[in-house]
Amino acid sequence: MPSVILGFAAAVAWEAGKPLVMEEVEVAPPQKMEVRVKILFTSLCHTDVYFWEAKGQNPMFPRILGHEAGGIVESVGEGVTELVPGDHVLPVFTGECKECAHCKSEESNMCDLLRINTDRGVMIHDGKSRFSKNGKPIYHFVGTSTFSEYTVVHVGCLAKINPLAPLDKVCVLSCGISTGFGATVNVAKPIKGSTVAVFGLGAVGLAAAEGARVSGASRIIGVDLNPNRFEQAKQFGVTEFVNPKDYNKPVQEVIAEMTDGGVDRSVECTGHVDAMISAFECVHDGWGVAVLVGVPHKDAVFKTHPMNFLNERTLKGTFFGNYKPRSDIPAVVEKYMNKELELEKFITHQVPFSEINKAFDYMLKGESIRCIIRMEH
Amino acid sequence: MPSVILGFAAAVAWEAGKPLVMEEVEVAPPQKMEVRVKILFTSLCHTDVYFWEAKGQNPMFPRILGHEAGGIVESVGEGVTELVPGDHVLPVFTGECKECAHCKSEESNMCDLLRINTDRGVMIHDGKSRFSKNGKPIYHFVGTSTFSEYTVVHVGCLAKINPLAPLDKVCVLSCGISTGFGATVNVAKPIKGSTVAVFGLGAVGLAAAEGARVSGASRIIGVDLNPNRFEQAKQFGVTEFVNPKDYNKPVQEVIAEMTDGGVDRSVECTGHVDAMISAFECVHDGWGVAVLVGVPHKDAVFKTHPMNFLNERTLKGTFFGNYKPRSDIPAVVEKYMNKELELEKFITHQVPFSEINKAFDYMLKGESIRCIIRMEH
Repeated sequence: MPSVILGFAAAVAWEAGKPLVMEEVEVAPPQKMEVRVKILFTSLCHTDVYFWEAKGQNPMFPRILGHEAGGIVESVGEGVTELVPGDHVLPVFTGECKECAHCKSEESNMCDLLRINTDRGVMIHDGKSRFSKNGKPIYHFVGTSTFSEYTVVHVGCLAKINPLAPLDKVCVLSCGISTGFGATVNVAKPIKGSTVAVFGLGAVGLAAAEGARVSGASRIIGVDLNPNRFEQAKQFGVTEFVNPKDYNKPVQEVIAEMTDGGVDRSVECTGHVDAMISAFECVHDGWGVAVLVGVPHKDAVFKTHPMNFLNERTLKGTFFGNYKPRSDIPAVVEKYMNKELELEKFITHQVPFSEINKAFDYMLKGESIRCIIRMEH
Repeated sequence: MPSVILGFAAAVAWEAGKPLVMEEVEVAPPQKMEVRVKILFTSLCHTDVYFWEAKGQNPMFPRILGHEAGGIVESVGEGVTELVPGDHVLPVFTGECKECAHCKSEESNMCDLLRINTDRGVMIHDGKSRFSKNGKPIYHFVGTSTFSEYTVVHVGCLAKINPLAPLDKVCVLSCGISTGFGATVNVAKPIKGSTVAVFGLGAVGLAAAEGARVSGASRIIGVDLNPNRFEQAKQFGVTEFVNPKDYNKPVQEVIAEMTDGGVDRSVECTGHVDAMISAFECVHDGWGVAVLVGVPHKDAVFKTHPMNFLNERTLKGTFFGNYKPRSDIPAVVEKYMNKELELEKFITHQVPFSEINKAFDYMLKGESIRCIIRMEH
């Protein structure tokens, strides 16, 4: 029976927007269907920053953030048969119970039991946290809390991967890169020679572009309000750049003119509703497919003339690139191992765990795509 | 060289909303890429009535309406090699040139050259009408004008079908029935055991339900404001009926409650934007697909919260059931011949050509699904 792990380091967010503090915390043993994981590498995603800033949400502190990571199973709780200590795993912020209607559907990855829940700071099994300091609980974050040397995760939120895969690279497949890449290859599905527009050239958008590049797209049009992003985006296959600020007409019209009626596929990665509308309206009639990835504001309203649909356009949304965490992510890791998918170019910075706050600075300044945080010194 | 056909009967719409008048008209020979067809059976569709009433459009009279029909090739113009006199054909209101980007795409049927154009009353080749009376031209309608014993049609708008197929039955495949049936089987694509909601139980909606029945749907929920339609709809596989007027909450919520979260597929056949929104929002997250068929008002705005897409719902529009007229419709006729698709139940009335105005009465009173008009006495 695994015991409490004492005195290991975690970066605790005590208050909204304040630097994380390195603390020695206690990590309780994994309970039924849970796994305790030693995290080796984690990276920082905008979602961590969003919940750290806690603007427009119910703040939940103290909390251990972090959800893109790679680690090794330390111990397993009752009922866990798929994983044993020593297995290499990627924790994922959403899960796969393998038993609900979504898990049984070939089309969905929105597990009823383990679907992302940003408002839950405890484990499902008993409604309690596994983290504490001096007897006081510290909240979990999206079931992963990877800014800690040890964490406890539901077995349904762990992808068991090839032990030869370098965790300091493939850890970025835990969230953003899979989200963007999967949006293109699993949902937009451009055929070879297609034209693809990508709205938003942050990590997710660049991963969507990488998906288009891997799919053999002939033109990849990057759309962003920040012109500094174009040079970097070229590495991800983006061939043309459109800054909506440079035109006095809607960007969908600009793209339609560039492409004789519209692109074959578009992928929206900003979450702004105006960009969503543009991404939909810029696809070609007859066959165009637009895919929404970016998470909208809760009051946003998507509006368009229904004839834009009637003229045989398709609009779909996706979550985590339509990947089922346990069933599908191991194969994405293999794509990296087979050199079909490049990850190194997403990793612009690295810091030791003790300097995790620098990763926040790099992201807030827009300098990094991904900053890897090394847990071991 | 074919000559002018003189003195054959056509039902001419001289004025908006006034009964058609049987007239002897001249039908000029088919020009380049045109075919002159002897119509044997035609049927009446709502679109004929809509352009006859000419509300909210530019009126174009005198005009020969009609676009659902079956006939036999009488003569062909220059360049026509696919058809010869005697071939059995269904004229279609939209065409397939086989050369444009849409025709070359596997996904589209929205031919650049021959896409429906309700504002054009003449032939593409020379911008002239082939119909005249006492030297004065009479306008064509959507390239078909089948309310005439002879008509001239672009070869790209004619499906060559099995000569053994009874034209008095398969003529209904020219428009509405293929539109609804194809929306389900080609676009919504319910798998066996699926739940399907159909909005609007007119001819197109009943054909969409027939598509769901043929696909093996386990539940087919018909939605209509007219409760009289349910009994008839049962013949088309509809298993449950929802009248939005019977509830004080949105029909999408009613359907979600009936189906543990939403239907697998929905098909919208009314053209009302509120029904479009309901049809989209009533599909299940994770895998639901909604298909828009009904043509909206030009000022309509489709509105929804973008999270409805992000939760992995898909919204698509379709035109003529995504069938390419020449390539695909012959196979739909074969489905009828093989008894996979039932057409008899759509045909509720028959009249001789001389009584064509009765067909308008039946439709305006909501009594008919399809009324077949027999050209020969």
